[in-house]
Amino acid sequence: MPVIYHYDVLSQPARSVLLFIKVNDIPVEEKTISIIKGENKTEEFKKVSPFGKVPVIDHDGFVLSESVAILQYLAATFNTKDHWYPKANKTRARIDEYLAWHHSNLRKTAVTWVRQVVLLPLLTKQPVDDAVKTSLTADYDQTLDEFERYFLSTKEGFIGGANDISIADLIASQEIDTNAAAGHDTFTNRPVLKAYMDRVRAKLQPHYGYVQRQVQAILAAVSAQK
Amino acid sequence: MPVIYHYDVLSQPARSVLLFIKVNDIPVEEKTISIIKGENKTEEFKKVSPFGKVPVIDHDGFVLSESVAILQYLAATFNTKDHWYPKANKTRARIDEYLAWHHSNLRKTAVTWVRQVVLLPLLTKQPVDDAVKTSLTADYDQTLDEFERYFLSTKEGFIGGANDISIADLIASQEIDTNAAAGHDTFTNRPVLKAYMDRVRAKLQPHYGYVQRQVQAILAAVSAQK
Repeated sequence: MPVIYHYDVLSQPARSVLLFIKVNDIPVEEKTISIIKGENKTEEFKKVSPFGKVPVIDHDGFVLSESVAILQYLAATFNTKDHWYPKANKTRARIDEYLAWHHSNLRKTAVTWVRQVVLLPLLTKQPVDDAVKTSLTADYDQTLDEFERYFLSTKEGFIGGANDISIADLIASQEIDTNAAAGHDTFTNRPVLKAYMDRVRAKLQPHYGYVQRQVQAILAAVSAQK
Repeated sequence: MPVIYHYDVLSQPARSVLLFIKVNDIPVEEKTISIIKGENKTEEFKKVSPFGKVPVIDHDGFVLSESVAILQYLAATFNTKDHWYPKANKTRARIDEYLAWHHSNLRKTAVTWVRQVVLLPLLTKQPVDDAVKTSLTADYDQTLDEFERYFLSTKEGFIGGANDISIADLIASQEIDTNAAAGHDTFTNRPVLKAYMDRVRAKLQPHYGYVQRQVQAILAAVSAQK
């Protein structure tokens, strides 16, 4: 049985899982759920996910939410190459350290920045307050600096000094790339981060381009309706 | 070599790890780091943890931060009983699902509530604004309700319907207990949560009482200085 994957491609964590499924050629039945259209709140979807959570997988009746947990489950269940989620304790611990840090740091400041500085002004047609923009940009910049200095401290390879890509890189890179595409000045003074992101993208081709085109098509359709 | 554990007992995640170490009788050298006294910002401590992060372990030179990652590493390295972090994919996925959800939900709303509603008024001797208290209490209450309905949906056992305690229960329980002790009305209309917390505490005795007494002693000393 394929994994049924319910997701919205506009969600960064959802794209991390989608890329993992594509790159690892995991048998999948894709079901797109548009949060903008409220499709995660329908009675039909609540039969799958009682609280309307996306992304969510249904694997032979085993329903699981939370992107990080989904990636860990898929890596174990489909026995993907070890580098995705290494089994050696110390190597895995470096990945888990990032995955725990992610939520209250990179995810929090990245998504707050893009929502408040970019999306909300677009939706409300009200410009963002300068002080708010400065403050949220400083928060996100500081987090990117910490990410670069701590998790990319070896200045090469991947998160935690790994030789190959892991689920931590998938989770981090979607936040970073989204905000850079949305206008954040991410790479000017961060050559280590820039080189890292180039390595991540190279590992995920051609699927990376496919996913980016899906996002662009949806955004173009939304813009055209306004 | 014992695990060197640098921690502040006033931190909820740090107490989760401390309890795990005690209950599993892991060889440990405890080093307390008082964040209130700025001991995490000293040059000496920065030799251990470059960004002054606590808690942190140093295991034969392997330095690791993030409580969740520390728990995962210790469970694997000291091969603790399987229930702490089950190896079976689906059972582990339920634990990982909570551990991923935790940061931006229970941790976020719990620690915001206790800082803004209880600690800040104590430190500044200014009463908390009623509207702020109402809003933060509503956020935390909603999160507790989601926790009870989703992660305790079987109404018995532990997080994810597990038969025995796991690292997810350790991480969740310290937030819940801290806020209940600090005056949040946690259990009045939540009998499922109350019975769950009784089961968690029972699994962690006598260490639970020992840790709670340490917290109380430090808080009494701080109060006496004012």
